[in-house]
Amino acid sequence: MKRGFAPDEYRARLDRAQARMNDESLGAILLTTEPDVRYFTGYLTRFWESPSRPWFVILPASGLPIAVIPSIGAALMAQTWITDIRTWSAPDPADDGVTLLADALREVVGPSGGAVGVPSGPETHLRMPLGDYELLQAASGLNFTHDYGITASLRAVKSEAEIAKIAHICTIATRAFDRVAQIACEGVALSRVFRDFQRLLLEEGADWVPYLAGGAGPDGYGDVISPARDSALLRGDVMMLDTGAVWDGYFCDFDRNFAIGPASDQAKRAHAQLSDAVLAGEAAARPGARASDVFAAMAAITGGGEGAGRLGHGLGMQLTEGLSLTAQDHSELRPGMVITLEPGVVTGPDRLMVAEENIVIREGGAERLTRFSGKTLPVL
Amino acid sequence: MKRGFAPDEYRARLDRAQARMNDESLGAILLTTEPDVRYFTGYLTRFWESPSRPWFVILPASGLPIAVIPSIGAALMAQTWITDIRTWSAPDPADDGVTLLADALREVVGPSGGAVGVPSGPETHLRMPLGDYELLQAASGLNFTHDYGITASLRAVKSEAEIAKIAHICTIATRAFDRVAQIACEGVALSRVFRDFQRLLLEEGADWVPYLAGGAGPDGYGDVISPARDSALLRGDVMMLDTGAVWDGYFCDFDRNFAIGPASDQAKRAHAQLSDAVLAGEAAARPGARASDVFAAMAAITGGGEGAGRLGHGLGMQLTEGLSLTAQDHSELRPGMVITLEPGVVTGPDRLMVAEENIVIREGGAERLTRFSGKTLPVL
Repeated sequence: MKRGFAPDEYRARLDRAQARMNDESLGAILLTTEPDVRYFTGYLTRFWESPSRPWFVILPASGLPIAVIPSIGAALMAQTWITDIRTWSAPDPADDGVTLLADALREVVGPSGGAVGVPSGPETHLRMPLGDYELLQAASGLNFTHDYGITASLRAVKSEAEIAKIAHICTIATRAFDRVAQIACEGVALSRVFRDFQRLLLEEGADWVPYLAGGAGPDGYGDVISPARDSALLRGDVMMLDTGAVWDGYFCDFDRNFAIGPASDQAKRAHAQLSDAVLAGEAAARPGARASDVFAAMAAITGGGEGAGRLGHGLGMQLTEGLSLTAQDHSELRPGMVITLEPGVVTGPDRLMVAEENIVIREGGAERLTRFSGKTLPVL
Repeated sequence: MKRGFAPDEYRARLDRAQARMNDESLGAILLTTEPDVRYFTGYLTRFWESPSRPWFVILPASGLPIAVIPSIGAALMAQTWITDIRTWSAPDPADDGVTLLADALREVVGPSGGAVGVPSGPETHLRMPLGDYELLQAASGLNFTHDYGITASLRAVKSEAEIAKIAHICTIATRAFDRVAQIACEGVALSRVFRDFQRLLLEEGADWVPYLAGGAGPDGYGDVISPARDSALLRGDVMMLDTGAVWDGYFCDFDRNFAIGPASDQAKRAHAQLSDAVLAGEAAARPGARASDVFAAMAAITGGGEGAGRLGHGLGMQLTEGLSLTAQDHSELRPGMVITLEPGVVTGPDRLMVAEENIVIREGGAERLTRFSGKTLPVL
């Protein structure tokens, strides 16, 4: 599996963005977050973990993107297809790139008089200090508005090269899940299982593991977002591990449930019901269907329990991105969208079990990216 | 080492914030990011990896914090010292917590008429969609302003309990670095070393590894932020690994250099020079000194090469936070600040070597949190 993308891929992304920008009379789009910058440039580094420096990429209405970035990133950015790279020595308490960015935006937008679009819709944030954003608006004298969801809508439909990367990390994580019996059984602390499962993911080929959650308890767990406890797994527990591991910047996001010792009838029933719900979601996940249709198909099996708060979501360059499988989200499924199917079943007071699988929407329907876990709850 | 903090610790943080808020006539502070929310609540989860849901905490000018969060987080937030927890079912495309938050802010600020402070200075961002922020301002009818740096200045000085957690993860990472000979030698791909080093960190007790960078090349490396290449380590390379690993939500951030096969005289000299620079920085890092003084002490040894762009920075709940060791940053060092000393030496065209150690500022001077690497470049 080759890392990175061919320059054509970035060119195509830019072309699609520029067509939409022209429709909306945007003079430029200003990008500030890791996935948005990476989507249009290929700039991949874990250095975003440091909040100390802002990073900017300008998509002009025509012509090539401009990177306005801290000088520490210049060498790595120069390895991408981006050629116009403007740098400053960050962090600079007097002017942390604001003047450089304002000048670049004026240069790009000036002739057209169009507005600068900034991603402002669901799941977005502006990754620069609010104080600097105000300075930028004043210094540039330009009109700032939202990006009309252009960035998000482009990212929602994956190319074949993107799908291949997601499929690759799904395969890696599947191999790690196949080895859980090596690290988990009655008496082992859940926190140790979390550590060791991250190790298995790395051994099987994940670049890194940005996300791991899960839980354990009799016939289910209390929630799906808590850090692991140091207490030991007990006979009769159901343990769940849910990982967002990454290969070349693309995520998988799926989980597996395991019974510690023989499973109770209730846990077995719940697991089978989750499997049925996943299959119902898979059948409903066809081009033209709405996110809410896939939600309804799964909720009909599980009795409407929301489980993890929604019954699935898009994924790709982020652990979760794009549509939500809820009753309220009527986004249309399109070929190339990658989503999770994540039904939940309530198994007791403050107890639930959750399943999660990953699929890609194809012309003919859903194609599996994970090897579905099936009805039978595995026993450790 | 115990996880979490006693409620007294959070109470003290809140008291200090409220004293400063009263000085600035703020009616409330609105927090939206993971470290800011965690600092005042203890809310710790890797679920922030998902960008789909905003999270809010309100610090009132008097009284206890209010969490305004997605319902999926209610159970975990209820395990913290926070008692006023208001939830909505997120993501909600019609109103993603905006009305609930506006109502809570009006309730808190209404009587005083004070403004709502939002962290807006260096290293901050607003973790909610800009579009929703505009709706919030309109819906609440309140005056929004910056937080006068209150949040950042409180977080910059660590309590003994915080320092103990940072020391703990430094010790864990030191043990992992002591095992690098088990995973790296001539012929091994750097990308494999990166994977295996993350595994060692987990085996030694890190909860997770948000950051790993490094490089390898003859007498040094090209930059310190690139992902690992799949090409093999060669005899004569200097390899550097720089990790930000986490225990209970607190980071270490330091690196180690290794020669692959016998080190060249130039690499040996550079490593010794880096060690001297670290010691000069350590000696200068006393209460009352400025960040720029520590920078100057190290730059005098290295000849002013900026290496990683600055010669160190604060750390704690984030990989980098607070002051920067640059000529421009005149922040005063205070007891309880935890910083890195990170000098760099240019070893050739587009080549450098960087050292990094972690210290805490005490009344009497610097106290080491890492076991300093010393002058001798280890050979693998």
